[in-house]
Amino acid sequence: MYSFKNDYSEGAHPKILEALVENNMQQEEGYGMDTYCEEARDLLRKEMDNEQVEIHFFVGGTQTNLTALAAFLRPHEAVIAAHTGHILVHETGAIEATGHKVIAMESTDSKLHAHQVVEALEAHTDEHMVKPKLVYISNSTELGNTYSLAELHALRQVCDDHGLWFFMDGARLGSALCAQGNDVTLKDLAELLDAFYIGGTKNGALFGEALVIGNDLLKPDFRFHIKQRGGLLAKGRLLGLQFKTLFEDRLFFDLANHANVMADRLREALDQKGYDLLVPSTTNQVFPILPNGLVDQLETSYGFYRWSKVGPDHTAIRLVTSWATDETQVDALISLVTTYHG
Amino acid sequence: MYSFKNDYSEGAHPKILEALVENNMQQEEGYGMDTYCEEARDLLRKEMDNEQVEIHFFVGGTQTNLTALAAFLRPHEAVIAAHTGHILVHETGAIEATGHKVIAMESTDSKLHAHQVVEALEAHTDEHMVKPKLVYISNSTELGNTYSLAELHALRQVCDDHGLWFFMDGARLGSALCAQGNDVTLKDLAELLDAFYIGGTKNGALFGEALVIGNDLLKPDFRFHIKQRGGLLAKGRLLGLQFKTLFEDRLFFDLANHANVMADRLREALDQKGYDLLVPSTTNQVFPILPNGLVDQLETSYGFYRWSKVGPDHTAIRLVTSWATDETQVDALISLVTTYHG
Amino acid sequence: MYSFKNDYSEGAHPKILEALVENNMQQEEGYGMDTYCEEARDLLRKEMDNEQVEIHFFVGGTQTNLTALAAFLRPHEAVIAAHTGHILVHETGAIEATGHKVIAMESTDSKLHAHQVVEALEAHTDEHMVKPKLVYISNSTELGNTYSLAELHALRQVCDDHGLWFFMDGARLGSALCAQGNDVTLKDLAELLDAFYIGGTKNGALFGEALVIGNDLLKPDFRFHIKQRGGLLAKGRLLGLQFKTLFEDRLFFDLANHANVMADRLREALDQKGYDLLVPSTTNQVFPILPNGLVDQLETSYGFYRWSKVGPDHTAIRLVTSWATDETQVDALISLVTTYHG
Amino acid sequence: MYSFKNDYSEGAHPKILEALVENNMQQEEGYGMDTYCEEARDLLRKEMDNEQVEIHFFVGGTQTNLTALAAFLRPHEAVIAAHTGHILVHETGAIEATGHKVIAMESTDSKLHAHQVVEALEAHTDEHMVKPKLVYISNSTELGNTYSLAELHALRQVCDDHGLWFFMDGARLGSALCAQGNDVTLKDLAELLDAFYIGGTKNGALFGEALVIGNDLLKPDFRFHIKQRGGLLAKGRLLGLQFKTLFEDRLFFDLANHANVMADRLREALDQKGYDLLVPSTTNQVFPILPNGLVDQLETSYGFYRWSKVGPDHTAIRLVTSWATDETQVDALISLVTTYHG
Repeated sequence: MYSFKNDYSEGAHPKILEALVENNMQQEEGYGMDTYCEEARDLLRKEMDNEQVEIHFFVGGTQTNLTALAAFLRPHEAVIAAHTGHILVHETGAIEATGHKVIAMESTDSKLHAHQVVEALEAHTDEHMVKPKLVYISNSTELGNTYSLAELHALRQVCDDHGLWFFMDGARLGSALCAQGNDVTLKDLAELLDAFYIGGTKNGALFGEALVIGNDLLKPDFRFHIKQRGGLLAKGRLLGLQFKTLFEDRLFFDLANHANVMADRLREALDQKGYDLLVPSTTNQVFPILPNGLVDQLETSYGFYRWSKVGPDHTAIRLVTSWATDETQVDALISLVTTYHG
Repeated sequence: MYSFKNDYSEGAHPKILEALVENNMQQEEGYGMDTYCEEARDLLRKEMDNEQVEIHFFVGGTQTNLTALAAFLRPHEAVIAAHTGHILVHETGAIEATGHKVIAMESTDSKLHAHQVVEALEAHTDEHMVKPKLVYISNSTELGNTYSLAELHALRQVCDDHGLWFFMDGARLGSALCAQGNDVTLKDLAELLDAFYIGGTKNGALFGEALVIGNDLLKPDFRFHIKQRGGLLAKGRLLGLQFKTLFEDRLFFDLANHANVMADRLREALDQKGYDLLVPSTTNQVFPILPNGLVDQLETSYGFYRWSKVGPDHTAIRLVTSWATDETQVDALISLVTTYHG
Repeated sequence: MYSFKNDYSEGAHPKILEALVENNMQQEEGYGMDTYCEEARDLLRKEMDNEQVEIHFFVGGTQTNLTALAAFLRPHEAVIAAHTGHILVHETGAIEATGHKVIAMESTDSKLHAHQVVEALEAHTDEHMVKPKLVYISNSTELGNTYSLAELHALRQVCDDHGLWFFMDGARLGSALCAQGNDVTLKDLAELLDAFYIGGTKNGALFGEALVIGNDLLKPDFRFHIKQRGGLLAKGRLLGLQFKTLFEDRLFFDLANHANVMADRLREALDQKGYDLLVPSTTNQVFPILPNGLVDQLETSYGFYRWSKVGPDHTAIRLVTSWATDETQVDALISLVTTYHG
Repeated sequence: MYSFKNDYSEGAHPKILEALVENNMQQEEGYGMDTYCEEARDLLRKEMDNEQVEIHFFVGGTQTNLTALAAFLRPHEAVIAAHTGHILVHETGAIEATGHKVIAMESTDSKLHAHQVVEALEAHTDEHMVKPKLVYISNSTELGNTYSLAELHALRQVCDDHGLWFFMDGARLGSALCAQGNDVTLKDLAELLDAFYIGGTKNGALFGEALVIGNDLLKPDFRFHIKQRGGLLAKGRLLGLQFKTLFEDRLFFDLANHANVMADRLREALDQKGYDLLVPSTTNQVFPILPNGLVDQLETSYGFYRWSKVGPDHTAIRLVTSWATDETQVDALISLVTTYHG
């Protein structure tokens, strides 16, 4: 059975494994002070055309989120996020476990909008309430949407107006940056965000997220926080080698692009067949609303998540493509969809 | 310059990389629910001759310590450790960051002894003080010592007498189990400890620690804690494949043994030359007290840590061997020591 | 200007001050181990007809909530509350600061209903999410509503079915128990709740909340938690004397009854004049929806909070009565309302 | 049996109760925004001859310590304290519960000295260790000692040199300031410390500690922290009235002076009889080393703590005097000591 369950079902792109094998017996400093990490940081700074940013590598996304947010906030400060935000839904209260409330703003498109930030601020009036201090967004979002440059500028503005930090969870940033219609670059992000991370785990690495800190106020002592939260990888070289490989020949973008192309093909076929999407995503997550019978049939050949029931006869499912998605499997699935008679 | 700084300077044993490459494109479930993790757990249970233990894989040691201890303790409960314990010295207050005090007991041999546990208990008399609840030991210790089976039994007894959990940090457990004079087995540990972990990072893996929970009271909901602390690796398969490889043909023990043989060779040469050791270790860490001139000379060819000054003319240094230590480099270093004239 | 802002604007009922003065120079043990605390506990147990409950005194409500909930929960466990719950809105993230998420369930009547607990449980399916473990309700609620005995039984049942703790914030419990239509007794609460507290601060004490723990599983070591959170009052005698005075001659109920009678009088007058209430409360908080002009006029003579705008021309305000409310002031305010011509 | 166990065995000085009674029915704002708190703050600022300090009132000392230290520190930052420090010994790990390690420096006189701060800094070298950031001292100390102005200047200097906060726990500050040989004033403290508190609980108040924040960097949002930790007293007026009364006619100093005079009388008598003190204190705590037989005899008439055994035949006990200590009881105890024949 072929899986469209997620974008981390396979290992890593072969070039990454090759790099690990090739440099395996080279002795290196531990904990991210190795030469590969330094090279990877240089490549990333070049990609962002920004020499000022500080870059730290983490193994996983939850770890990155909890370490960064706990480092950036004082005890009484809270996070504002769309109610669909990963930190609100799928990280077992990791942010709360560091002592901070996450304020959930209801969102119809899984994005947080500038006016919602203002609403959150207006609802918190004095010292009997937490103080909203950090805006958290995911790009792409948990439902596959992306932020436009204009939306990011609007959020930046509201953060500036109210003294808030602006943070982006980029677990699926590659797919967002390569999506049709995207007008945002890594350079933009380095300028607009106080901090954000570039996800490797879901885009062809064995693991790894690169946290980029742009705001000088958030840089001091950051490595203490990584260590304290258990995130300082002894063989940090593994993170360096992977990000070096991903950004040496734009492999990062090629892999994200493949995932998107596969998803676009799915979307196109579903559209032609007349099926609606739960959310009009443009990235590597597709949420078609299908007849229950077709869902049952697809499940005999493919792995995926049933997302939500839509009326009595239909179900929205989630199909995730990735750098590793096999084109022939996409076509075979499309064929099943196309030939289905309810 | 060849490094004796630590046991994580290289990548991984080639067999581990081979396993990763070989299984790379196989689709697997995420977060430690894959087939390799299950196979690795089976191998470990077999090695321990114990079907009851629960096994969870982590990326690193600090993460394992903080997740386990925070999961096992109520807010007012504290840890007892030798003052040299890793959690007290080298984890940036990770345990305190989860809310728990670590009670430091002065130790001359870097081990915690049963009578010291009693002393700690006697010093904590009522609700105005924390309640000591968990005994933390490292084996081998931070200075390369190991616990005998009798010492472990004595600690188990005092834990039973006073309702304490007994936990072992096994970041360098391989070296301890393969040390000359060791009389402890993994089977013993599974029976004696409430929980302990088997370190992969410092014994030939890219990364990875296997937490073994023996006490049924500590098992419920443990995966929630791993996720909440950011330790649930998306591609958990990587941990499964590594531990499977380490325990399939006793590779784990072969690698630890090589590290110990290299350290023994160093100790023997130092002893013949008349140099004392700061601590009489039997594992892969050697702490010779050398003339300052010799230390200066060694530093021109080798990487290592200066540990402490011993009088005006001598310095204790730390030499660490590993699965990857090159025998010819050991002999070359010995040659420098042997031919030194102060 | 006379204040209807809250129920803690004055000091304490004179009998309480008399008790403090009378026993002032008596030497007593500290930290709640004094004779008055013991007498107060005996009186409370008698009032509840329950010898098994454990009783601890706190200075304030937020302190009680955060100490109890943090003591009762493991790190991954979360609280379920109505979105209006005090811990969600007005305690500056105190629960999150101890590491626990509070799950907000939208409520139209400021009460949490059994079916909402089930909904919260159904939305939390695995270890990637927090584990709901404790049901928090306030009685009376933040909008002045009360729970019926049937509602409490239904919540108890759902807690039993799913292994949840059931906790009640009783900051305004006196008013709830004395409200018209109430069918709940302290005896019922001691039987139905795993823990709850009886509020003194808002019912005539200088300060003080009595936490009642009914469930044996939640009792061990509780005093450690009070001390750790800074809640163990050195002169605990002050809490003992106050609760002893409140429960010696049913003063607690007399005071709550006065507050309710004053509120009922307000409600009756508002109803006769045809004004709606934002919420149909029966306790010492009244939320009338008034013409903006009347609100402006009232503000020249009375202190109160504007709660929310209701359409362009009306505003809901909050009027709070208490044990100390002056009947003549109530009548004067009613007179203003009655004679108002918009 | 008369108690010398502590300085919080009685209620409050009668003037304080009078103030509470007199103002009882006056309506006031809650949470420390009342007129009495403002008056008390004015009196305190005048006493310190310092208009810049910010003053917050707390109910108890542990609450003050944990709230202030957690507010002042980032997650990876730690506290340096003498090993006898109250936060290390008698607060149930309250500081650790907020996530911060307390570094214990061995002290022979229960004071922390400037060179020990340097030692603590030197032992913490990189991000694998916590970062020492705040110097905590108690004045008087837990063994009744006081800091000289020169000692405070030396500590201030080392704090300035290394970017540390300087904090003083003043639970027994009154006794320190009135001790024989003291050369420190409240004005000095307001200038030298980043923050400190003035203890009321152990000097004649029912309860209450006044936290003085001198450093502007530590002032923002402080009330959020008080609320979050459960320390914002609803009827804050009680704190205002007490501190107003204590500082209106120098009652605070008169009370502390009485306690010291009583302690001095004890010390003089013990000295004349030839008994040594465990610690040469000058404040309201006296630690005589007495023959076991005398200790047994004293225990039949007086309450006090046995502090430590001193050899096989002697025991150090703790005698605490206070604002309320009865002179005739002191003389009676002295008489017992004087007439004892071992």
